[in-house]
Amino acid sequence: MNRRFVFNILGKILVSEAVLLILPIIVALIYKESTVFALLISALIALVLGLPLVLFSKPKNNLIFAREGFLIVALAWIAMSVIGALPFYISREIPSYVDAFFETVSGFTTTGSTILTDVEALSKSLLFWRSFTHWIGGMGVLVFVMAIMPNVSDRSIHIIRAEMPGPVIGKLVPKVKDTAKILYLIYIVLTLVLAVLLMAGGMPVLDSFIHAFGTAGTGGFGIKADSIASYSPYIQWVIIIFMLLFGVNFNLYFLILIGRFKSALKSTELWIYVSIVAISTVIICANTFSLYNSFSESIRTSLFQVSAIITTTGFATTDFNLWPELSKGILFVLMFIGGCAGSTAGGLKISRVTMLFKTVRREIKRLLHPRSVSSVNFEGKRVDESTLSSATTYFATFMFCFFAVFILLSFDKFDFVSNFTATATCLNNVGPGFNVVGPMGSFAGYSNFSKIVLSFAMLFGRLEIYPMIIALSPATWTKK
Amino acid sequence: MNRRFVFNILGKILVSEAVLLILPIIVALIYKESTVFALLISALIALVLGLPLVLFSKPKNNLIFAREGFLIVALAWIAMSVIGALPFYISREIPSYVDAFFETVSGFTTTGSTILTDVEALSKSLLFWRSFTHWIGGMGVLVFVMAIMPNVSDRSIHIIRAEMPGPVIGKLVPKVKDTAKILYLIYIVLTLVLAVLLMAGGMPVLDSFIHAFGTAGTGGFGIKADSIASYSPYIQWVIIIFMLLFGVNFNLYFLILIGRFKSALKSTELWIYVSIVAISTVIICANTFSLYNSFSESIRTSLFQVSAIITTTGFATTDFNLWPELSKGILFVLMFIGGCAGSTAGGLKISRVTMLFKTVRREIKRLLHPRSVSSVNFEGKRVDESTLSSATTYFATFMFCFFAVFILLSFDKFDFVSNFTATATCLNNVGPGFNVVGPMGSFAGYSNFSKIVLSFAMLFGRLEIYPMIIALSPATWTKK
Repeated sequence: MNRRFVFNILGKILVSEAVLLILPIIVALIYKESTVFALLISALIALVLGLPLVLFSKPKNNLIFAREGFLIVALAWIAMSVIGALPFYISREIPSYVDAFFETVSGFTTTGSTILTDVEALSKSLLFWRSFTHWIGGMGVLVFVMAIMPNVSDRSIHIIRAEMPGPVIGKLVPKVKDTAKILYLIYIVLTLVLAVLLMAGGMPVLDSFIHAFGTAGTGGFGIKADSIASYSPYIQWVIIIFMLLFGVNFNLYFLILIGRFKSALKSTELWIYVSIVAISTVIICANTFSLYNSFSESIRTSLFQVSAIITTTGFATTDFNLWPELSKGILFVLMFIGGCAGSTAGGLKISRVTMLFKTVRREIKRLLHPRSVSSVNFEGKRVDESTLSSATTYFATFMFCFFAVFILLSFDKFDFVSNFTATATCLNNVGPGFNVVGPMGSFAGYSNFSKIVLSFAMLFGRLEIYPMIIALSPATWTKK
Repeated sequence: MNRRFVFNILGKILVSEAVLLILPIIVALIYKESTVFALLISALIALVLGLPLVLFSKPKNNLIFAREGFLIVALAWIAMSVIGALPFYISREIPSYVDAFFETVSGFTTTGSTILTDVEALSKSLLFWRSFTHWIGGMGVLVFVMAIMPNVSDRSIHIIRAEMPGPVIGKLVPKVKDTAKILYLIYIVLTLVLAVLLMAGGMPVLDSFIHAFGTAGTGGFGIKADSIASYSPYIQWVIIIFMLLFGVNFNLYFLILIGRFKSALKSTELWIYVSIVAISTVIICANTFSLYNSFSESIRTSLFQVSAIITTTGFATTDFNLWPELSKGILFVLMFIGGCAGSTAGGLKISRVTMLFKTVRREIKRLLHPRSVSSVNFEGKRVDESTLSSATTYFATFMFCFFAVFILLSFDKFDFVSNFTATATCLNNVGPGFNVVGPMGSFAGYSNFSKIVLSFAMLFGRLEIYPMIIALSPATWTKK
């Protein structure tokens, strides 16, 4: 294993985090908040830990394989979270380090589950940092480093592949570095447009950026106890549209960027995504109609929660915990489906679920005609067998993790629904669940053990499990 | 499609059912119960429907393929249940036909979920019939027909394959008919031994047979409101041991029968099964220790529920609905695992779960060493790729069904946990779930729509989904 390379990148990640911490420091200075010291100390710690790795762990070569890719990504995300939690802890705004770690992992993994019972008590600079982690984690911290790092070898596709969710990761353009740059450019532009639209709706500048970060990363941290409920219908609509936009495969935006509108609109995954959103909204709208005062409120509220859950953002404009079982059941299933591959959304991803479905259909065909040879097509192309078997195997892996996390949570004091949906919402990087962990509740009541389990569940979910298993398995550290 | 063959077998199934109804008729005569008429009429209807099919739908040849196998099995199970429900309905002991159908499907599929709120009010002959359906469904009604039918071609392996659960079905001996006979012989002997042991514990003869049927088929219908709770520790231990025995692959008994003890004990699946039972029991015992008066009561109660759930029998000696979340969580996971392949148990089956697990492990290896070729071994042999991909695909199919049934149930008035565990318990053919459908509860409160959905869920689970999908798909009936 190319350890020097791994630790070198890890160092670069920590230095980048120190640099990224400058933004909340500026916010703290503007609002004259005392958190500036906590933020500065945290940035300093990141530098002190990161710089030596950058300077003294110079790799002899850039030769890396899949193993290094997985390892870098897993270690980077854990390190980022360990350091990212410091501002909350040092400032005593989140007095427990485990809580601060949970909140930061929830931020970077774009989950949006919170241990805060009174989010409005947080300082502006830490609210900013909290949501900024969503934005960083959404597109991927390593994609970012790849984009800015000099001398990126094309071997680095191993790193991007390990960090980007979805069944297949392609390069938009021949060079890895350029792909990373284009992705970040689209991401930044869309975020800025959203922030401006929110400001146009009367939202203060800082709050607009915070909500834009939470939406762009499909994270879901808000700044109010009732999430987005007290904002105007205009703002709710803007957030609905952008949640849905950030749940779309970014490759489509690239296609639009280079003028290939038709190719973009031909995406099967896009249309399945739109259809699932439409059908779910119609059913929930009919099911919850009597709870709302007008047709427009009903459709907006239904569409908002559907978009928030399927894109795994996790904002809310209503306490859907009080909805009838059918609507809750649909939201629960949407948590697992998630957004499109290549977006910032979590969950299993539409394309993977579609492949699973097509594999099942093919299996039935095969049972009827054992000698027939039939392939599975997706997006107009034949999907090769290894991709299909990866999708079904990933699903099995995912469910194993699901049941393991659920059993570990059952040691705690809460009920079946709270534990079950907490597992689902963390592993899928959604945010809220039902009952105790409902949209108006929090994860505060869970024990430290449960919070650590859920933190790792979020990391497992965001990195699609394998990098974390590989990093945590002793074999990785002992064998050659 | 060889329709004449399909309908001919269907006719034979109905005639067999008429013959099988003689047993409860004898019980009714012995106890001078008025249900004798309802039973006689039902048997007559089965004959009237079945005989013409046997006589006038004579197949021109015995050439059948997988398609016919699936179709025969699906239609046979539906027909058996439709007719088998009549005695309950005609006698007015279950006044609603949908309820009677649910109860009968639950019987044949060896689920053991009940719509009865007062089981003790049922006549002895119908209690006998109800549990006898467990016994018939346990080993498979078509295996039975194959065993007694003359001129069974070896093509009939398609039928047995479609009816027998588990990832791979082999023939014990070269001839299909002999395989079926051997399986039934083992089944009958084990059932008789169990009945005798129950009588030795002071249980009346009829009750002993009823409980033996419920245990052998891993069904779980009891005759008392509190299931097995009020029986002596001796009887509980006997049932524990036999539940576990009927959850073992019958091939092992065949090996023992021919003197190959060592081969039988070498079974990986057996040891995984034993380990899961042991570990689950120890954890639950520790978790629920304070609820019971003595160590022996605690260990017996824990082991009883673990055995009842993993073998998908569904008897109970305690209201595990009141257990702490950890114990309930473990039981919930055990529902999905189920017993060994080639047993009468339901669930995903130990061997399939093991293959899933090994496939996941292999996937991780492959990610680390993309060029390496590694195979999965199970029971000392290399598992071929198509079996592995069938296992992962089956799991995906299963979960799709799971979510579909869960959403359909959510239209009803009950809570998340009731609906979720009702889905799990019916699809895995276990019996009880939590909350409303807990071991001391019933499915009585569900709407007719939900009961029909759950009836089909039980059939889907027992026949491992594909036969039902194939029978219900319009393409089967239109295309050549």
